Amino acid sequence: MYLFHKYLLHKYLLLKYLFHKPREPWQAIAKRAQDHRDATLAAVQPPVPDILELPLDSTLIPKTLLTQEELQITESDPMTLIQKMSSGVLSSEAVTNAFLRRAAVAQKLVNCVTELMPEAALWRTVSLDAYLKEHGKPLPISTKEMIHIAGLTCNAAFIVWHDRVPDKNAHILEILLDAGCVLYARTTQPQTLMYLETSSNYYRITVNPFNRNLTSGGSSGGKGALLGLRGSSLGIGTDIGGSIRVPAANNGVYGLRPTSKCLPNQGMTAPMPGAEHILGVIGPLSTSLPAIPLFVKTLLDAKPWLRDPSLVPLPWNTSPRFPVAAAGSKTIKIGVMYHDGVVQPHTPIYRVLQNLHTKLADVPGIEVTTFTPYKHDEAWDIIYSLYFADGGAEEKAALAASGAPWRPLSKFILSENLNVKPLSVPEVWDLTIKRDEYRNAYARHRAVSGIDVLICPVGPGAAPKVDCARYWGYTAQWNLLDYPALIAPVSKVLPIDILDPEFVAWNDQDAYNHSLYSPEKYANAPVSVQVVGRRFEDEKVVEAWAYVQEKLGLPWAEYV
Amino acid sequence: MYLFHKYLLHKYLLLKYLFHKPREPWQAIAKRAQDHRDATLAAVQPPVPDILELPLDSTLIPKTLLTQEELQITESDPMTLIQKMSSGVLSSEAVTNAFLRRAAVAQKLVNCVTELMPEAALWRTVSLDAYLKEHGKPLPISTKEMIHIAGLTCNAAFIVWHDRVPDKNAHILEILLDAGCVLYARTTQPQTLMYLETSSNYYRITVNPFNRNLTSGGSSGGKGALLGLRGSSLGIGTDIGGSIRVPAANNGVYGLRPTSKCLPNQGMTAPMPGAEHILGVIGPLSTSLPAIPLFVKTLLDAKPWLRDPSLVPLPWNTSPRFPVAAAGSKTIKIGVMYHDGVVQPHTPIYRVLQNLHTKLADVPGIEVTTFTPYKHDEAWDIIYSLYFADGGAEEKAALAASGAPWRPLSKFILSENLNVKPLSVPEVWDLTIKRDEYRNAYARHRAVSGIDVLICPVGPGAAPKVDCARYWGYTAQWNLLDYPALIAPVSKVLPIDILDPEFVAWNDQDAYNHSLYSPEKYANAPVSVQVVGRRFEDEKVVEAWAYVQEKLGLPWAEYV
Repeated sequence: MYLFHKYLLHKYLLLKYLFHKPREPWQAIAKRAQDHRDATLAAVQPPVPDILELPLDSTLIPKTLLTQEELQITESDPMTLIQKMSSGVLSSEAVTNAFLRRAAVAQKLVNCVTELMPEAALWRTVSLDAYLKEHGKPLPISTKEMIHIAGLTCNAAFIVWHDRVPDKNAHILEILLDAGCVLYARTTQPQTLMYLETSSNYYRITVNPFNRNLTSGGSSGGKGALLGLRGSSLGIGTDIGGSIRVPAANNGVYGLRPTSKCLPNQGMTAPMPGAEHILGVIGPLSTSLPAIPLFVKTLLDAKPWLRDPSLVPLPWNTSPRFPVAAAGSKTIKIGVMYHDGVVQPHTPIYRVLQNLHTKLADVPGIEVTTFTPYKHDEAWDIIYSLYFADGGAEEKAALAASGAPWRPLSKFILSENLNVKPLSVPEVWDLTIKRDEYRNAYARHRAVSGIDVLICPVGPGAAPKVDCARYWGYTAQWNLLDYPALIAPVSKVLPIDILDPEFVAWNDQDAYNHSLYSPEKYANAPVSVQVVGRRFEDEKVVEAWAYVQEKLGLPWAEYV
Repeated sequence: MYLFHKYLLHKYLLLKYLFHKPREPWQAIAKRAQDHRDATLAAVQPPVPDILELPLDSTLIPKTLLTQEELQITESDPMTLIQKMSSGVLSSEAVTNAFLRRAAVAQKLVNCVTELMPEAALWRTVSLDAYLKEHGKPLPISTKEMIHIAGLTCNAAFIVWHDRVPDKNAHILEILLDAGCVLYARTTQPQTLMYLETSSNYYRITVNPFNRNLTSGGSSGGKGALLGLRGSSLGIGTDIGGSIRVPAANNGVYGLRPTSKCLPNQGMTAPMPGAEHILGVIGPLSTSLPAIPLFVKTLLDAKPWLRDPSLVPLPWNTSPRFPVAAAGSKTIKIGVMYHDGVVQPHTPIYRVLQNLHTKLADVPGIEVTTFTPYKHDEAWDIIYSLYFADGGAEEKAALAASGAPWRPLSKFILSENLNVKPLSVPEVWDLTIKRDEYRNAYARHRAVSGIDVLICPVGPGAAPKVDCARYWGYTAQWNLLDYPALIAPVSKVLPIDILDPEFVAWNDQDAYNHSLYSPEKYANAPVSVQVVGRRFEDEKVVEAWAYVQEKLGLPWAEYV
């Protein structure tokens, strides 16, 4: 018997030896990824110097390292750049190289890039310049690493997926390349892709350009930080709980979570690809508001629904949703939601919403009203359960397979919450019914308010310190409802934004969030708002905010 | 110890006695439902006589029992009726009563009604006639029993749900009532709602008006039979595998399975309401082709997406998809698919498709080509697994709870197929990925063909004998792909439609289907086709067929 056991053990080890190559230490895999990134950075010409002393606020550093022309290019609105390239004032090569240089600086400042693509990008501009005027949009675009580029590794921040190499481009990139765009930079994302910060065993932490003690947000956090430093003016992110919006808000740029099933998101690496109870979306982040509809319209003009039959064939409607009246004003009813009834936002968020409310009331044509949240705690319970209907099994297995340590927020989201448990199919159906009933009830609630668009917080505060972004309710709410939501910068955290002396915590989550804040800790962090519309009313959201922005002279800060 | 056991047993029986009322025999429940139905029939005035000798072909009987005016009304196109009621030539009371009378005759002939609503319907017409001209559409509409009407029982053919009474109308009925419609008849459906015939322990079998040895189809089979006998000119059905289309085809009327998420289907009783891997849809059956777009447009004009946020806000596009060219013809490329590569349709189906193909080739502007199916067997495997992701547990439990016997096709669909098994959440995700990959591949395949619309069989034959409709592939295919599919009558089974002497079975399913057929057994059965478009191209499908029908003088039979 003993011999038989021994025989089996021997057999087992032999098979293991034959079929499982020994696991490479995760540190070696991460090191290789970093070396590759550094090599691509080193190929940028002229080389970008190392930055020896990293300041709290990184936003001023590029001005000391780049040429006047590079600064002018990278701080231009994308619409201006496209126009100047089309008219021959700027070459697409010069524009691409300026962004490559600034992205390299951004990497050295906040650690936001997984790789640059100087050779491929500049080679492309050579061919582009020849027929630039026909194409019209040779804008450099940055992408999130999880989005497939043929021939480049795509690991989605999972160490175990380090050698996955897609053989074709994501659908969205095919369309953008056809439109003339130039791909030149890929950006970082967090372990699991499922939290609102960016840290991983590949690249460690992507910090906030405005205050390196704070997070850049996530999961499109590399993208947000790169845009915050103007290393990109237009980039692609993804969002299933706030992953476009939180990085946009934390870094003072625009971002749109579009209604699902409008933009093509086939061709990406992520866990749970078959789950459809809550749909992830792809969308733009930009330093410019007009670039947001330009991006969406470029995609929809290509009729992506012909190739991807899961999409709804709705073109971007360019006729005004709010026509200008005879008096020169637009008639818009805006709701302001100060909190979601679950976690109270920090002082600067309240200040900004109150200022907007007051000033909007004075804009001709605009009616502004306070919007009452409807059971956002229930929404959070439903969406949290549906995110990980397998109890997080796939994510946990992928993490375990590499042997690399869990990041604190991976633990928080996958292991410390009672809602994460393996569900049976009938349990998923029950939750789906609850989801739909909640969606119906919210539609009624919203209809009663009579508002066109809603202005609300993006989160319970500006960018927090790393490992503290534990409450997704302000963004996940609109994922559950599948409402389009635009992020727009408004202000920054100011010394006047002191703690509310009369604060009383509503619950543990609220108390935790309150404990994070002081105006000193959050100094200089951008303060943004979320502008939310009804499902499929993406155009309305963008148009309403463009009008508000113009009327109120937003943003109320020189550089956010 | 023995005493203790005895004590527990006693306790158990006591509790059982106290909390479980004895189960009512299912026969008593069914009897009550039939008595209720008969009482509502008896309230129709003047009374409809019993029909003592039931002929093989029921379609001529109404002519012997109804008045000339009633015949004229019930055999009119709904568009004509609406116009005549609007202009005051006909009262809505006369129209409603004519349909009530003919529906009562239909019930006595083919057993297709669960109840008539003479009092409520006629009371409504009294109030309607007063402001008829404003409303414009006081058309009597029949509904499938599973669709909620406030205050009426809704059992969805499950005995155990005999006492379910919704407290509000289905969304779709609210809109139709607002548009002036009159509800006057509810129709039968099969046990489980999940097969393409109509038989249940409530009402037994709904037979085919054209040949009572054949099935009326299902699950909207009561509806199909009622329309086949002109006891209704426009009715509402539902379809997750062919349940609108097969009854429409079997009874020689029009039916549309619209693209999902267009028409409001909230407010119905059915098992697995939270399942969304394969979406059921609601849609019209009618004796008239123009009434199909009228129905859809009436619903979409009410903007149902404002109340039901799961819907896509796409209005019915009335501008021609195929504009008429200078020469007076429309340019349409039509594919003809003769079989799905899995089960070969019977002779009359081939005959009709070949005739259409030949004649279409002669119509100016129309290009016609043979369309090759793409892996329809794979589609069938995927959809079959996704229908019952809980292994049919909910259906089986609902059946078991009543103690009533299983119908043969309930057994076939739930217990005799290897694809029906309880799946885990990750298994459902894997199948969902397969589903989406298949959808993508089919979109490519279809794009290569360059066709605008496809003409194909509705099933592997005309209406079969009861308990024989075992192959859903021809309709379920378009549920899996979520393509809009219109059913249109073309011909009937003729004595010339003899068995193909060179038939060789491709597989067991094919051999079984072949064994069912002879022109004698299927005598007089309507032969219809299915016209299929790309997702969200419902308008294109209807417009293309209207053109074909006009050019070819369809249908090629006096009464189908």
